[in-house]
Amino acid sequence: MAGARRVANDPQRKQRILDAALVVIAGHGVHRTTHRRIAEQAGVPLGSLTYHFESLDAILEQAFAHLGESMSERYGAALAAAPDLAAACAAVTDLICGDEYATEREQTLIYEMYAYANHNATVAETGRRWIARSHASLRTHFSERASRAIDALIEGWSIHQAYERKLLDRTLVLDTVTAIAERLR
Amino acid sequence: MAGARRVANDPQRKQRILDAALVVIAGHGVHRTTHRRIAEQAGVPLGSLTYHFESLDAILEQAFAHLGESMSERYGAALAAAPDLAAACAAVTDLICGDEYATEREQTLIYEMYAYANHNATVAETGRRWIARSHASLRTHFSERASRAIDALIEGWSIHQAYERKLLDRTLVLDTVTAIAERLR
Repeated sequence: MAGARRVANDPQRKQRILDAALVVIAGHGVHRTTHRRIAEQAGVPLGSLTYHFESLDAILEQAFAHLGESMSERYGAALAAAPDLAAACAAVTDLICGDEYATEREQTLIYEMYAYANHNATVAETGRRWIARSHASLRTHFSERASRAIDALIEGWSIHQAYERKLLDRTLVLDTVTAIAERLR
Repeated sequence: MAGARRVANDPQRKQRILDAALVVIAGHGVHRTTHRRIAEQAGVPLGSLTYHFESLDAILEQAFAHLGESMSERYGAALAAAPDLAAACAAVTDLICGDEYATEREQTLIYEMYAYANHNATVAETGRRWIARSHASLRTHFSERASRAIDALIEGWSIHQAYERKLLDRTLVLDTVTAIAERLR
């Protein structure tokens, strides 16, 4: 009882477990993520995981939801700060080319999330909500049609950049985003 | 000995195991893919897997290589058949919107491949070779810069389409591809 109360009184422990889960997933993949590895990474006893989460799936679901929310917020903030269309095109270019939108670790986690979502309905819903939020952020500057195209471009280019491990040509990205923004009104 | 010879004399068995591995990965994810599930799907004894492949990783590596090659061929053939730039833009639109490029099962496998590639150097190389081949196919019609942008677009839009489970607006896709092809020369 005392042990359970002590666990419940540590409000940051649950979040620490979720953060640790993301580190383990990025390092080992969902296919090699275990309760034991997460507990070690978080520096908490194994029993703490089963106290806070009813299953490994539940940990993964909440960890991916946490990832999606923090990335959506950054995506939205970058676009909200742009005063006009040209600045919005530059902000999108930064999202694609820079580390602001997704660090290499986060990009790794995005693949894992997409793969896992095919086998878990809760994570699939997290992914769809994330796409919807990105779209809404783009819509504050771009037309409905341009927003759809630009969002697909951000997704695909981030993947290719991480894969090929070379820096993108910033001018090429800016020219592409601007072409879409101007032609699809 | 006789058993081993019989296995060795079935040249299609190895391919059948790789095909079965892709079915299992698509259905269960890499994280739940096992020797047993692959053997059941292929309709071969478990020992047949260890005869042909030294590890589960080796099966996954060759299965993903097989996926990459068959998809690259389709991608290349669709673009080779286009007589001019307008037809090439339409072919790219079909690749994005239709089932020709990737069935829903293949799209699922692509996520799995990208996720797994972060933890397996051989599969990462398969992915990079695939991106290079796609780029070469696009280059027969489009400028270097437009090819990079269009390839990212194909990647990202295929993902979003599979995720949101709704059909893309074909006119929007064609307009986007054409805008990039015309503006990035």
